[in-house]
Amino acid sequence: MLQPVVAHQSGVGSETRTERDSLGVYEVPEGALYGVHTARARDNFRISGLSLHQFPEMVQALAMVKKASARANRMLGVLSLEKAAVIEAVCDELLAGKHHDHFIVDMIQGGAGTSTNMNANEVIANLGLLELGFSKGECQHLHPNDDVNKSQSTNDVYPTALRLAILLNMQAFTQEHQRLCDAFEANALEFDGIAKLGRTQLQDAVPMTLGQEFRSFSNTIEEDIERLRDTSRLLWEVNLGGTAIGTGVNTPANYAEVAVGELRRISGFPLRSARNLVEASSDLGAFVAFSGILKRVAVKLSKICNDLRLLSSGPRSGFGEIRLPPVQAGSSIMPGKVNPVIPEVVNQIAFQVIGNDLTVTMAAEAGQLQLNAMKPVAILNILQSLRILKSGMACLTDRCVLGIEADEARCHFLLNNSLAYATSLVPEIGYERAAQAAKYALAKNLSISEALIELGIEATVSN
Amino acid sequence: MLQPVVAHQSGVGSETRTERDSLGVYEVPEGALYGVHTARARDNFRISGLSLHQFPEMVQALAMVKKASARANRMLGVLSLEKAAVIEAVCDELLAGKHHDHFIVDMIQGGAGTSTNMNANEVIANLGLLELGFSKGECQHLHPNDDVNKSQSTNDVYPTALRLAILLNMQAFTQEHQRLCDAFEANALEFDGIAKLGRTQLQDAVPMTLGQEFRSFSNTIEEDIERLRDTSRLLWEVNLGGTAIGTGVNTPANYAEVAVGELRRISGFPLRSARNLVEASSDLGAFVAFSGILKRVAVKLSKICNDLRLLSSGPRSGFGEIRLPPVQAGSSIMPGKVNPVIPEVVNQIAFQVIGNDLTVTMAAEAGQLQLNAMKPVAILNILQSLRILKSGMACLTDRCVLGIEADEARCHFLLNNSLAYATSLVPEIGYERAAQAAKYALAKNLSISEALIELGIEATVSN
Amino acid sequence: MLQPVVAHQSGVGSETRTERDSLGVYEVPEGALYGVHTARARDNFRISGLSLHQFPEMVQALAMVKKASARANRMLGVLSLEKAAVIEAVCDELLAGKHHDHFIVDMIQGGAGTSTNMNANEVIANLGLLELGFSKGECQHLHPNDDVNKSQSTNDVYPTALRLAILLNMQAFTQEHQRLCDAFEANALEFDGIAKLGRTQLQDAVPMTLGQEFRSFSNTIEEDIERLRDTSRLLWEVNLGGTAIGTGVNTPANYAEVAVGELRRISGFPLRSARNLVEASSDLGAFVAFSGILKRVAVKLSKICNDLRLLSSGPRSGFGEIRLPPVQAGSSIMPGKVNPVIPEVVNQIAFQVIGNDLTVTMAAEAGQLQLNAMKPVAILNILQSLRILKSGMACLTDRCVLGIEADEARCHFLLNNSLAYATSLVPEIGYERAAQAAKYALAKNLSISEALIELGIEATVSN
Amino acid sequence: MLQPVVAHQSGVGSETRTERDSLGVYEVPEGALYGVHTARARDNFRISGLSLHQFPEMVQALAMVKKASARANRMLGVLSLEKAAVIEAVCDELLAGKHHDHFIVDMIQGGAGTSTNMNANEVIANLGLLELGFSKGECQHLHPNDDVNKSQSTNDVYPTALRLAILLNMQAFTQEHQRLCDAFEANALEFDGIAKLGRTQLQDAVPMTLGQEFRSFSNTIEEDIERLRDTSRLLWEVNLGGTAIGTGVNTPANYAEVAVGELRRISGFPLRSARNLVEASSDLGAFVAFSGILKRVAVKLSKICNDLRLLSSGPRSGFGEIRLPPVQAGSSIMPGKVNPVIPEVVNQIAFQVIGNDLTVTMAAEAGQLQLNAMKPVAILNILQSLRILKSGMACLTDRCVLGIEADEARCHFLLNNSLAYATSLVPEIGYERAAQAAKYALAKNLSISEALIELGIEATVSN
Repeated sequence: MLQPVVAHQSGVGSETRTERDSLGVYEVPEGALYGVHTARARDNFRISGLSLHQFPEMVQALAMVKKASARANRMLGVLSLEKAAVIEAVCDELLAGKHHDHFIVDMIQGGAGTSTNMNANEVIANLGLLELGFSKGECQHLHPNDDVNKSQSTNDVYPTALRLAILLNMQAFTQEHQRLCDAFEANALEFDGIAKLGRTQLQDAVPMTLGQEFRSFSNTIEEDIERLRDTSRLLWEVNLGGTAIGTGVNTPANYAEVAVGELRRISGFPLRSARNLVEASSDLGAFVAFSGILKRVAVKLSKICNDLRLLSSGPRSGFGEIRLPPVQAGSSIMPGKVNPVIPEVVNQIAFQVIGNDLTVTMAAEAGQLQLNAMKPVAILNILQSLRILKSGMACLTDRCVLGIEADEARCHFLLNNSLAYATSLVPEIGYERAAQAAKYALAKNLSISEALIELGIEATVSN
Repeated sequence: MLQPVVAHQSGVGSETRTERDSLGVYEVPEGALYGVHTARARDNFRISGLSLHQFPEMVQALAMVKKASARANRMLGVLSLEKAAVIEAVCDELLAGKHHDHFIVDMIQGGAGTSTNMNANEVIANLGLLELGFSKGECQHLHPNDDVNKSQSTNDVYPTALRLAILLNMQAFTQEHQRLCDAFEANALEFDGIAKLGRTQLQDAVPMTLGQEFRSFSNTIEEDIERLRDTSRLLWEVNLGGTAIGTGVNTPANYAEVAVGELRRISGFPLRSARNLVEASSDLGAFVAFSGILKRVAVKLSKICNDLRLLSSGPRSGFGEIRLPPVQAGSSIMPGKVNPVIPEVVNQIAFQVIGNDLTVTMAAEAGQLQLNAMKPVAILNILQSLRILKSGMACLTDRCVLGIEADEARCHFLLNNSLAYATSLVPEIGYERAAQAAKYALAKNLSISEALIELGIEATVSN
Repeated sequence: MLQPVVAHQSGVGSETRTERDSLGVYEVPEGALYGVHTARARDNFRISGLSLHQFPEMVQALAMVKKASARANRMLGVLSLEKAAVIEAVCDELLAGKHHDHFIVDMIQGGAGTSTNMNANEVIANLGLLELGFSKGECQHLHPNDDVNKSQSTNDVYPTALRLAILLNMQAFTQEHQRLCDAFEANALEFDGIAKLGRTQLQDAVPMTLGQEFRSFSNTIEEDIERLRDTSRLLWEVNLGGTAIGTGVNTPANYAEVAVGELRRISGFPLRSARNLVEASSDLGAFVAFSGILKRVAVKLSKICNDLRLLSSGPRSGFGEIRLPPVQAGSSIMPGKVNPVIPEVVNQIAFQVIGNDLTVTMAAEAGQLQLNAMKPVAILNILQSLRILKSGMACLTDRCVLGIEADEARCHFLLNNSLAYATSLVPEIGYERAAQAAKYALAKNLSISEALIELGIEATVSN
Repeated sequence: MLQPVVAHQSGVGSETRTERDSLGVYEVPEGALYGVHTARARDNFRISGLSLHQFPEMVQALAMVKKASARANRMLGVLSLEKAAVIEAVCDELLAGKHHDHFIVDMIQGGAGTSTNMNANEVIANLGLLELGFSKGECQHLHPNDDVNKSQSTNDVYPTALRLAILLNMQAFTQEHQRLCDAFEANALEFDGIAKLGRTQLQDAVPMTLGQEFRSFSNTIEEDIERLRDTSRLLWEVNLGGTAIGTGVNTPANYAEVAVGELRRISGFPLRSARNLVEASSDLGAFVAFSGILKRVAVKLSKICNDLRLLSSGPRSGFGEIRLPPVQAGSSIMPGKVNPVIPEVVNQIAFQVIGNDLTVTMAAEAGQLQLNAMKPVAILNILQSLRILKSGMACLTDRCVLGIEADEARCHFLLNNSLAYATSLVPEIGYERAAQAAKYALAKNLSISEALIELGIEATVSN
């Protein structure tokens, strides 16, 4: 059986209870806190083996939305105090990390997220029922749709929760991003005094310092931190209250405003209602933009890792200007070989993130009329990209960048052995004579100073 | 902690044993069958949360390669009978599905697969040691590198195993592919008598039958089955025996030939040595081609699912020519709504596969000199694409296609209400007069026959 | 000969003059204003058939940079008044659109843009020489490298010019973007009173107005206008003055500051120096971000065009809620057929832009050490995307959106014939009984009101 | 005006004639051989600036299809001898390269290729009319739709012509592919005696020869030649005779068979009818597969060019094992610098082709029901990829590969200075002691032989 095994929820044995929905009866595991809708979805979508609970930020985001909605419903008089209180209490348990193993639907699912929303509705209703002294499934006392999902539709709950799930990742992500930036800056400070050869198009160019080279890594990452922060603000705009298609059908007056206000308080993020809820129901523009910036992060990390691998190539017959810390033996056959395995894994993470961005793009393009049903695969790819980029950056910082050493002697040798100082002659003797000298030096295996002398050109080589 | 939890290997407690490699000492869980190289890799690469054992075809493929190598080494006199026998026996246990939980390295890893290869070498060595009455880690009696990995390098073992891992998927994959093809063909037979409107560019075109429409699904899938079979043959060419860079360093004479021969027998696949082992060490061309065809499979499935969703749009205010079987309630807010959730999940699988193909492409492009170090992310994406496509096809066949019903009355109504028969007038009255009649009919809300009469054009409308 | 013919520059006959560079002598067309470097590049890169002069914004951008540099060099005392004056005068001619046909190098070129920069240096030098009364090629009086390129390197000139070239496109692009937005808004106003069926997942959902549907198009485009404006600001940061690798080798003190100041004045854009010129020399992050937003524009346009095609499907046997203006006969065989050709071409433009973004991404990832040599293909793809998106939007506005008509009767029929009002029953009778009624209505071919009566459920259907 | 200027067709002045179609009257340039349908399309689609005539293989392919159709229509008795003869004669003129400048529609167009087909129908009809002594536009004597397009639809003509257009490129493409392969093989033969260091993961690995390295380039390209040849065979299957949706509406009995037979004779390609013409009308599978292999070609070329740039890095402070022939001065500021501009341009071509493949993929996925309307952008991208790959390979062969020189002394130095021979110790002294020796040698800056002596390990270092 090739499918990764879905972790079984605790307390779920082989016994079942029978539940009913508009399609008929269906067996649900006796111990399950979810109900018939979730059980059908579990069986309909055995796709990726990645279940909702493997993305705890998703469960938390759903709990926040459900809690805010219960509050708003109570404040607007459409949900009893008692029901609202129990829903809120249950949501707090979810926020505390409990019961997550009952969120079992596959992250890749049809139905535009309905199964995810119903999984939340059912678990919350059943936990509420137990709290109120009823049995699971006695929906007449607390109903997944009529109470927990009151004034809501998957089409506003799910996109709102997706935005929250991403935002919940940002702090830890940015922290790793900043740590990597700082690590390169520390290198830069350490290497500021080391003169070396700058290279363009892999060819010897002009002098620089190793510190400058590492500071450019630090600075380029810093820009991405800012870019990602800016772009994540697009996610502050949510469509909660729009319900089915953005027209707010089945919501009491002012629901959107009140619910988003509560969600702002609960989440701590400065959320606001989308200007046009109809537009917001079908548009994945913010996800496309965010994923696009993750792609940019990946592109930059990959370029940096390519450079680290180039600069550390050797140990003897490559560039060899820096040494990466060895973290494992490099080869099963070649003794003593140590490879740049950490940059290599980050390169691969970057390729994955770039591929994921394409999936997000295609999902966004496939929206139709009042909804985009392809959101599940989009959010899965964004959350996965966030996760592996974060892991990769942590790994890169701790297992590579912090331990990088310069080979100062090698840097000096390669610089002095090159013709890098020829460029500085141009203002004095002009491009053409400088080119003549450089060409002569190369052909005769001379230094640029020696070439000038042999050619009888008077000029001072600065270095 | 966001990282999906790596399933812990059975029998591994918190106690450790100390092992040593060229980097120094390292703690390994007491119960672990793997050793220091694997332990370091586990800690170096906490990236995707997807471990080697979650892809049992990978473990099996590695076991086949190790078994074939042991045999070849014995036959060529470089490995003792006893050591070869115990390695083979242990490999058979792995092939029987045992001990897989000790294959723990992350599928995304730096080092070009060395950690995967060493994970296999260490587990096999330790199992062999236990079998021989020694303790784990007493490598002097059976060594992961010197014995299990004898005459091998990661750089030939790993690519060979990757090819096997894909091939091991093909039978079950093709079976689901064929089942889907057959299901559409069954629909086609059932719907052959139902005349309907053909549409191009979403506009009413000319008559056809619903059977023809479904047979085109069946036939287009059939072509992909053939395409995938053809392309998988590229994977029969392996580089086992090339060792580090394809020059066969540290192999006895004839090793490649003998080892590939044994692997052919063990695996049952008609494997052969790559013509140029140096080229084969760095090239991912076969993977790019295979992934490209998986992308084609995805493209076709997505187009078909788009069609199923269009044709079943409604239930009342869309095309409504077919009905998909309801498999779950469609909405948390809209009662009675049933959505095309199965085609929708297949669309998303397709987008994932297309994104994965890009990752494979970028990994392949990043090869350098004598090796491509980016293979791990490439194989992960190919195996994932195979897996989700297979799941998606099974889901599509069983939960959708087999239960599709035609709405014959709707098909007839839409056909007869259209101007689809205007085209057949062209041979008789010419394109221009036929266009005039069609335009007139549309403007005056007439049938094409009525329009001809009003315009005084004599012609017979066939249908 | 498959290659698109490069338009021949005026006044260039078959006669040649001989020029010399460090590689030796080379023939240049007698009438050519360019010189040996350009001639070699023309012959080295016969790739895309797209020449520099086909992107006049590139020539203009180069002229601005050269003019600003000449001024700065003069102000800082490293270029004579006379030389600076003639360079500035020549640049003004280029800005006025003259001599563009001498910018002949292929847009796809190796060398990181050196050929483009030298094409500009040589044309400017030769025009200056002619103005000063010398012959073309008498470089001792005005030198392409030593004078026109003074204090500059391709590695700062080219990236700066690329940013300018994009910025030069923005006004006209945004204007078309806004016109499209306005056209949809005009539709929305016209259609505000037309009630229709909203659809999710292509299934009948709940009521809305056609005005709401079109306003969501308008609003989603408006967001992109803002997004693109924001992102284009990243391009205000230029690396002029960094020369070869960002260290400013061969520039006088304060050159970067003065040159960027002049360029700000000349271009009218609020340009500023990049914080880290070394980083800015190799990073394509701003291009990746900008291209990513162009991709988002494409995704949204494609989604909208898909909707327009769906909503206008028919004319009789589709959704048929709107009519697109006919702009050409739709078929060579089917008389009277009119197809949604304008949305179709915009879909294709979107696919091209998404593909182009991948090319930009790969180019950005391929930077190495102190430079990214792949900039030419990146800028070509961005400029092409800007161009075809702009053309596509103009085409969509003028030939489609402005002429869209609603079929109000059809909208009403499809709405009233549907079960869209069932959802509004939920607050009154609960989800389950509402679902029962909807299911019954569908099965018995009744309206929702009729179903409620037959089922004996008391509730008011609002509409 | 940013739009690339569409080359104006010869003999077309500012005077116009008035033509009429079902949408009304329209002005057509007096001198134009095309008619109203083409003129409308020209104005509807001012998108890419790339006109049909810039792809002469497209005009030729259309001419072949029209000629074969005329013959088949005549043979089956539905077209007069006279009309068939004049159509054939005109097609022969097109095949001879005449009148191409009247094929003016943009390659990116809506309408699934109808405008391209009508452009051909109209030009052929008008040329025929002139030949018969009538005036352009006197369609009653030879009609673009009723005669030239008889028994045809865009939906079978266009896909058939696209396949032919690709096939018409194959011979010249393969020739360049083979020349590049041969050039690398020539290098390999020349370099067979040069021992050098093999590298994996950019780290010193084990010995090989420079000949082996270049032969791997040659062999990997050779595989692609075979792959492309195989895949191009998918294009032999055409849907001519299927007309509008594959049901063959408006064709005489046996038309498909006869027409494809004639097309086989005319084209010289072993074409055959698609098994299922309905399926073949909407499927772009063969294009996806072909483009996927072009992507593979691009991936391999890019990897090879990366290697060439690495191996030639220097000239003094890089790997420097080979020297690429200088083809232009490398820098506008750095005198004497010579860059690997040819490999760089091929890298960029590869990125373009990979992006183009994504566009083809998205176009293929967007097929709907009985047609794929997105074919124009797909074929444009395939033909462009073929063109730039071919140019790039020619450029790589002639301006780089043929002139590559080995630096044998450098190869020897880097090999002997490395620890590459440590691996060969493993069979004798085991992995662990060999690793110890390698580590010691590196730390103490010794050769591996010296390290063995100091460590007191007895072993023979072979080289």
